[in-house]
Amino acid sequence: MDEKALRRLLRRVRSGSLSVGSATDQLKQIPFAELGYATLDTHRHLRVGFPEVVLGEPKTVEQLLGIAEALRIRKQTVLVTRLQPDKAEALLKRFPRGQYHSQARIFELKAGRPARAGRVAIVTAGTSDIPIAEEAAVTAQAMGATVQRIYDVGVAGIHRLLRRRAEIQEADAAVVVAGMEGALASAVGGLVGIPVVAVPTSVGYGASFGGLSALLAMITSCASNVATVNIDNGFGAGFYAALVSRGRSRSAK
Amino acid sequence: MDEKALRRLLRRVRSGSLSVGSATDQLKQIPFAELGYATLDTHRHLRVGFPEVVLGEPKTVEQLLGIAEALRIRKQTVLVTRLQPDKAEALLKRFPRGQYHSQARIFELKAGRPARAGRVAIVTAGTSDIPIAEEAAVTAQAMGATVQRIYDVGVAGIHRLLRRRAEIQEADAAVVVAGMEGALASAVGGLVGIPVVAVPTSVGYGASFGGLSALLAMITSCASNVATVNIDNGFGAGFYAALVSRGRSRSAK
Amino acid sequence: MDEKALRRLLRRVRSGSLSVGSATDQLKQIPFAELGYATLDTHRHLRVGFPEVVLGEPKTVEQLLGIAEALRIRKQTVLVTRLQPDKAEALLKRFPRGQYHSQARIFELKAGRPARAGRVAIVTAGTSDIPIAEEAAVTAQAMGATVQRIYDVGVAGIHRLLRRRAEIQEADAAVVVAGMEGALASAVGGLVGIPVVAVPTSVGYGASFGGLSALLAMITSCASNVATVNIDNGFGAGFYAALVSRGRSRSAK
Amino acid sequence: MDEKALRRLLRRVRSGSLSVGSATDQLKQIPFAELGYATLDTHRHLRVGFPEVVLGEPKTVEQLLGIAEALRIRKQTVLVTRLQPDKAEALLKRFPRGQYHSQARIFELKAGRPARAGRVAIVTAGTSDIPIAEEAAVTAQAMGATVQRIYDVGVAGIHRLLRRRAEIQEADAAVVVAGMEGALASAVGGLVGIPVVAVPTSVGYGASFGGLSALLAMITSCASNVATVNIDNGFGAGFYAALVSRGRSRSAK
Amino acid sequence: MDEKALRRLLRRVRSGSLSVGSATDQLKQIPFAELGYATLDTHRHLRVGFPEVVLGEPKTVEQLLGIAEALRIRKQTVLVTRLQPDKAEALLKRFPRGQYHSQARIFELKAGRPARAGRVAIVTAGTSDIPIAEEAAVTAQAMGATVQRIYDVGVAGIHRLLRRRAEIQEADAAVVVAGMEGALASAVGGLVGIPVVAVPTSVGYGASFGGLSALLAMITSCASNVATVNIDNGFGAGFYAALVSRGRSRSAK
Amino acid sequence: MDEKALRRLLRRVRSGSLSVGSATDQLKQIPFAELGYATLDTHRHLRVGFPEVVLGEPKTVEQLLGIAEALRIRKQTVLVTRLQPDKAEALLKRFPRGQYHSQARIFELKAGRPARAGRVAIVTAGTSDIPIAEEAAVTAQAMGATVQRIYDVGVAGIHRLLRRRAEIQEADAAVVVAGMEGALASAVGGLVGIPVVAVPTSVGYGASFGGLSALLAMITSCASNVATVNIDNGFGAGFYAALVSRGRSRSAK
Amino acid sequence: MDEKALRRLLRRVRSGSLSVGSATDQLKQIPFAELGYATLDTHRHLRVGFPEVVLGEPKTVEQLLGIAEALRIRKQTVLVTRLQPDKAEALLKRFPRGQYHSQARIFELKAGRPARAGRVAIVTAGTSDIPIAEEAAVTAQAMGATVQRIYDVGVAGIHRLLRRRAEIQEADAAVVVAGMEGALASAVGGLVGIPVVAVPTSVGYGASFGGLSALLAMITSCASNVATVNIDNGFGAGFYAALVSRGRSRSAK
Amino acid sequence: MDEKALRRLLRRVRSGSLSVGSATDQLKQIPFAELGYATLDTHRHLRVGFPEVVLGEPKTVEQLLGIAEALRIRKQTVLVTRLQPDKAEALLKRFPRGQYHSQARIFELKAGRPARAGRVAIVTAGTSDIPIAEEAAVTAQAMGATVQRIYDVGVAGIHRLLRRRAEIQEADAAVVVAGMEGALASAVGGLVGIPVVAVPTSVGYGASFGGLSALLAMITSCASNVATVNIDNGFGAGFYAALVSRGRSRSAK
Repeated sequence: MDEKALRRLLRRVRSGSLSVGSATDQLKQIPFAELGYATLDTHRHLRVGFPEVVLGEPKTVEQLLGIAEALRIRKQTVLVTRLQPDKAEALLKRFPRGQYHSQARIFELKAGRPARAGRVAIVTAGTSDIPIAEEAAVTAQAMGATVQRIYDVGVAGIHRLLRRRAEIQEADAAVVVAGMEGALASAVGGLVGIPVVAVPTSVGYGASFGGLSALLAMITSCASNVATVNIDNGFGAGFYAALVSRGRSRSAK
Repeated sequence: MDEKALRRLLRRVRSGSLSVGSATDQLKQIPFAELGYATLDTHRHLRVGFPEVVLGEPKTVEQLLGIAEALRIRKQTVLVTRLQPDKAEALLKRFPRGQYHSQARIFELKAGRPARAGRVAIVTAGTSDIPIAEEAAVTAQAMGATVQRIYDVGVAGIHRLLRRRAEIQEADAAVVVAGMEGALASAVGGLVGIPVVAVPTSVGYGASFGGLSALLAMITSCASNVATVNIDNGFGAGFYAALVSRGRSRSAK
Repeated sequence: MDEKALRRLLRRVRSGSLSVGSATDQLKQIPFAELGYATLDTHRHLRVGFPEVVLGEPKTVEQLLGIAEALRIRKQTVLVTRLQPDKAEALLKRFPRGQYHSQARIFELKAGRPARAGRVAIVTAGTSDIPIAEEAAVTAQAMGATVQRIYDVGVAGIHRLLRRRAEIQEADAAVVVAGMEGALASAVGGLVGIPVVAVPTSVGYGASFGGLSALLAMITSCASNVATVNIDNGFGAGFYAALVSRGRSRSAK
Repeated sequence: MDEKALRRLLRRVRSGSLSVGSATDQLKQIPFAELGYATLDTHRHLRVGFPEVVLGEPKTVEQLLGIAEALRIRKQTVLVTRLQPDKAEALLKRFPRGQYHSQARIFELKAGRPARAGRVAIVTAGTSDIPIAEEAAVTAQAMGATVQRIYDVGVAGIHRLLRRRAEIQEADAAVVVAGMEGALASAVGGLVGIPVVAVPTSVGYGASFGGLSALLAMITSCASNVATVNIDNGFGAGFYAALVSRGRSRSAK
Repeated sequence: MDEKALRRLLRRVRSGSLSVGSATDQLKQIPFAELGYATLDTHRHLRVGFPEVVLGEPKTVEQLLGIAEALRIRKQTVLVTRLQPDKAEALLKRFPRGQYHSQARIFELKAGRPARAGRVAIVTAGTSDIPIAEEAAVTAQAMGATVQRIYDVGVAGIHRLLRRRAEIQEADAAVVVAGMEGALASAVGGLVGIPVVAVPTSVGYGASFGGLSALLAMITSCASNVATVNIDNGFGAGFYAALVSRGRSRSAK
Repeated sequence: MDEKALRRLLRRVRSGSLSVGSATDQLKQIPFAELGYATLDTHRHLRVGFPEVVLGEPKTVEQLLGIAEALRIRKQTVLVTRLQPDKAEALLKRFPRGQYHSQARIFELKAGRPARAGRVAIVTAGTSDIPIAEEAAVTAQAMGATVQRIYDVGVAGIHRLLRRRAEIQEADAAVVVAGMEGALASAVGGLVGIPVVAVPTSVGYGASFGGLSALLAMITSCASNVATVNIDNGFGAGFYAALVSRGRSRSAK
Repeated sequence: MDEKALRRLLRRVRSGSLSVGSATDQLKQIPFAELGYATLDTHRHLRVGFPEVVLGEPKTVEQLLGIAEALRIRKQTVLVTRLQPDKAEALLKRFPRGQYHSQARIFELKAGRPARAGRVAIVTAGTSDIPIAEEAAVTAQAMGATVQRIYDVGVAGIHRLLRRRAEIQEADAAVVVAGMEGALASAVGGLVGIPVVAVPTSVGYGASFGGLSALLAMITSCASNVATVNIDNGFGAGFYAALVSRGRSRSAK
Repeated sequence: MDEKALRRLLRRVRSGSLSVGSATDQLKQIPFAELGYATLDTHRHLRVGFPEVVLGEPKTVEQLLGIAEALRIRKQTVLVTRLQPDKAEALLKRFPRGQYHSQARIFELKAGRPARAGRVAIVTAGTSDIPIAEEAAVTAQAMGATVQRIYDVGVAGIHRLLRRRAEIQEADAAVVVAGMEGALASAVGGLVGIPVVAVPTSVGYGASFGGLSALLAMITSCASNVATVNIDNGFGAGFYAALVSRGRSRSAK
């Protein structure tokens, strides 16, 4: 409730068109649903432009069903990430119109059309980075973005990447998914002029230390148009890139 | 040189309007200036939308003068970051129309107007984060952005931040600068719906470990609209936010 | 045995009311029970105000039964933490009056009433932090505290927390349980004037590094009323908060 | 502003005894002083029971003078921690009634009497831990606590500690300051029944890694009445212990 | 396509013997096979002297079959490393002429003779390092090298190593495989005058931290003829040593 | 072969009482048995005073049987550490006179009496440290030491330790086994005047980081008579303490 | 014994109610001297066999003079380690019979002869490790040991070490001092049958990380007769080795 | 001394043409010069193909003069690395024919011609990496290699690198020097077929952590022809590359 709304409400109280009780209620009213084990942020849609997304991995089936129901009732899209297949089945049984993207491990139950966003290029260094890339892709699509997939173009054979340069440059934002030494983020950042969101992956062995080496490489990238999200956080990268693409896409028209 | 340009060039070779020697030259020609100690990427302006920025700290005065001269000749803006005051003096002596932003430690020598970008809010947790915030602010302004400074509003007194929420929300992108536990990035991310670029700072003592703790906190942020750059990388954050703001700003019209 | 007790005992020896043999026995008697594999600190009750609590996870069923029996005989409350369900069953079979708090993974066998303590608010950032929060809650209750649960109010939707501020402020101490970036501890610390005990949790993925990132964030908290315990140490946090609440609660009367 | 106050304000608006403009102002009014480079949290006194404390180390003399002036005007005690001697001189020149505790590196300018707190025992492992211990002691005293200093009683000669056990037990809270292996926190925790606040120090060499080893030892302490603050954070420990002692002290009466 | 080839192509365009369309195609043509989930670098053979090697561990059987087929069609040797036995069976079923080196966990399907390389000595500290050593050995052999195996000669019984010195010195390059403290790399480096490739292994427990300690020891080796590859990267070490041995071997004739 | 033996051999060659061939053989002869996968250091007994001990965990049953056979033939004691129960069964079947210490996870096949060593006290902080302590105890006994076990006397109840002080002081060396904060090593070191060998254990959770915290605490111990071995290395600690005790024990007579 | 108790005791001596002999006994009895900033453990001599050693680095000259005086009065040897040259001068001025070992950075003021210990070999990997080795040597000599110095025999030229093997084996204990990869400890441990005390040094650059790499290598040493002390802790290693040598030396006679 | 030489020597002893004393001497003789503080490995030239190189940084001028003299007397080239300018002056004064490469920080005193080696390409990511690159270049040249310098071609502007590909490919080995994210090593490795030696540099700030991030990136490189040396170890990389180039260079003829 911003200042303008506040003044309006107060004027209605003064004029008597709003009772003190109702005004108190409105001033007190808060934008979440209390489920006991969860406090759903049901106004995030207004605030951030997309409903709250649910991290499925550590939650029980009962909690997930409860949360999904609470969102569905409020006519909000349900997006459950990092969801194990067996829990997905339980959700699909209750919500048959939902969809489980198995490679991305995302359960999605749409509620109306998302706002239109722009184009997002999703680039991976190797084949093993694809599940995280798919998590980014499904998320960006759920947010209204058009996604271009460019997979397995790591720097150890850099001509593979160079050939796809134009496709990436045409996007409004790029997501780069890479494990091990994570050099692809810098290479893409240097090739194109759009914002790049880098996702380190835990794929790899030895001194990749579960994605730490890739994370450090991406954070210290010499390319200025690279920012980084958490290891394996395909969802976050897809969300961020779609958010960025919204403005950039519309601005081109 | 994209495919269309390539076809055009080849047609001119076929028609004889371009000699094989000239065509070879053009195909070979590459977009950098070799200074021996530096290979300037003079086409970055076209590719990324802003000229190459020079990291001043580890370079000698001679190197900096040479690089600045090479950029000036090409009519490109010169931006030297992390520049020590004594080196700044040497640059100002040679280029009296330049400017040294002492808190931001940036030397700037403008060449024409930057492309117009949008609004960038720059938010700090404490007073000690201001030098990095200024580095972000000066960079974003050099890229054409309008900057709104909101300083010393860390979560340990969160009502200070809440009061400024609307100002941040009105921007096209936000930079959040914080050291120690770096919690401000998540708090801002949760309050507004715009892309947030988080900058951990090395300010602090003990277990802040030179910014590592803030970096880890920002990378693991539960807010999906937060991406992170290197510790103390005010320049990178300002650059990234200005880049994001370009599209978003124009799209709003 | 303090000095006064010692003098009394010696006077009784001098007066003949206590034989040399008995006195020797008493002087030799020491405040622990030796079980071979364990040296129970049976006087901790007097010293610390609560009996020794047993870490169940690495112990065998036989060891646990032996320890529980030794405590029960001494009429002390038995509290076994981090107890796997199958071992809990074995304990319940032997001690049918005991209780297994399955979410908290605590086995409890009460012996009389605990000393009265004050009010403890237990706050979590997410749904996945609840098991550790319950460990804190059950422990604090076993120590005589009244517990107020406030779950899933993380900073990514900070208005959820703001609404519950008064409830937390009314407590004598607060436990804040959070994983990932752990920012909630600083936020709660800044909102209220009571001592806050922060518990990082290992919930999360990627750069949360098993709770290390949350631990570092909590340790470097800018709020001065925050102190931290071990990752996932719900028991320790509940114990500490109840201990603090004892004094604060009585002092308010 | 809680619900009751809100209702009252709204009734006054309805009755006309408060104009819409004034009500808006009051609803907007917020408890801080904006200094440009700092947003002072002037209501912290009400909220936390002690005014905002200023971290002196990274601030300029000008900033410190401005902040101190703003607090003095509001009749709040000024406490500047980690203050270098040369900056202290500048503060003393402007505020001759202030005091610089040189070993603790704290500048203090009192404004009335602090609320009465209880007894705090401050224990160090070695001689080199004394500066941090003094930071804790001066802070606790400024908050109204009575401080008992017990220095250089590390576990490598544990009988030194055992002799002082009673003195520690009589306090309402203890601060334990130790570097290197930090074992003293566990030893004190096991000996007494009061809340212990552990402070790792960066004193030491080799694998003490600037206090990290002591921090890890304290966080993993087997004693349940130990919670930990940041490396070298004497201020935080003194503040926390004094806060805890307030309730415990009054409760004993 | 180098300059000479470029001039030739352009002359053919001018002379009309090559159409603009064909020239465009050739200039665009790139050396990889797109499989959707993989972008095979089929020209690596020409560039690096050995076909692309496939990391088997994280790929599905379907992906592996597709990749192997694509390489076989191009008459390139197939080498799949870190391959689980069950996937190996599936490959063997489809390609009965292939071979699974079970200790080395490598699937190999030869296509003609490799270029001749030199002699590679493969040395291990213990029995447990043998699987990684075999990965190096099978790789080096596939690249045409002759391999000498010298196993279980760690520095804790250094006379075992001294006796084998001459055998190692006669090789063109050595691979040293060791876990725990990794001291063998320095010892071998000091004994012989040939390039040594060190491989830390994750074998071990406690402070070996999954090979990190051995990695650090090898990287900081005081012997100047030691360079290091990733933990457990037997493949990389065998590849590198064989590559080095090619030149050295021929040069001796 | 030392200088004297060398001169003797050479004189026999000159005198013709030793053929060149035999002398060469003797000079070449080396003290190990080559098993292909292992190079047994069969002279270690002479050099170090105890036969080579075999790390069982990463070896196959076939390798273990071969090694044990080779040692038995040479009439040397067989000690296999960190041995899984199923492999132990296979060894017991082949060598029925062997013994499997299940808690210590050691297989032992004696060959004659060990040299007499002194007294070794083995002290643990908790019940969960006992398996590692038993590994130390069985090893020390196999080396001829007399072992005194003092278990579960951690510093969180330090009076338990104080009561056992004399027993520890009477030993020739002490092994201290502790996880979590590892403070017991410093406490024991400060109480007694004998060499202490500290063993960090991986027992624990959270910030114990698999024994790293205990390792750091022990390495930085303020007690000068403490040296440390690897995490969970009960064998090494028992070996070292027995070795130390040999001299000390005999010296007392 | 505080001042009040002291006065009481002295009055009783004056009044004749306490004999001088008894008073002396009482004054000698409590085993520490309280200096305010230090609690000297004056009975450590009896307990550990050597007086308390003072870490000079972090203490002020005043503290050091006070401590030295207190030890000298009690006729105990004074050993101040890690002492800066300027502080050493102040000590030498007050105690002209003292000695400053400048390479070892130790101030020594002898009080009678130390107990006789055995032979200690001190071995370094390089020239740069000598200062730490000297700290060990001076300490061991102060404790009565005979020291054999063997410097600059690192494993990168292992024949240098092999030639000195007999000298090391003849000692009762060895100290091995090495930085960088720290491989020398394992090599020495494998060559001889005596207890080895390993000291990692912070000498080096890059991935030696201030001695951490050497520490990890030594802790994970495959040689069972190696135990480790803190980085740069020459004093601790010399102390430990001398302690071990006492028993072993006498036992050989 | 290998077996053949041994038989020859023994035959001469038998025949009486070599006395027992001389034979003993020869068998004992060892290849180093003892300077007290240093044990020079004077046979390394024969063993490794290049004299021992001296790390200048931690040594005193006196030690350096002594070592240089000892090498000069033996007619061996002197190479002192990481040498501070003031020490270099002292060496130049004594050995006026020496040369100080100031950017590389190497003092060189030639003794005859080095063996001929091949071509080594030295590639840097940025201008700030040049000092380390020069250390590699001077070392490789001292070992007889021809050096090609290719500086400031990092991946953030990858076309700069692509243009220089042929030059690198023509070399026999490449050294890649890069700080921050270190991605250049993978990019070069993927572009060429020669062995690449990667050197991480400590240049950079924030999460580059003194070169650790670059080290991890290089060690986890996906290019199989990349091996890594210590952070800032230009000397080691130049040495290794020159060693590799020797064989490869000759083999091409």
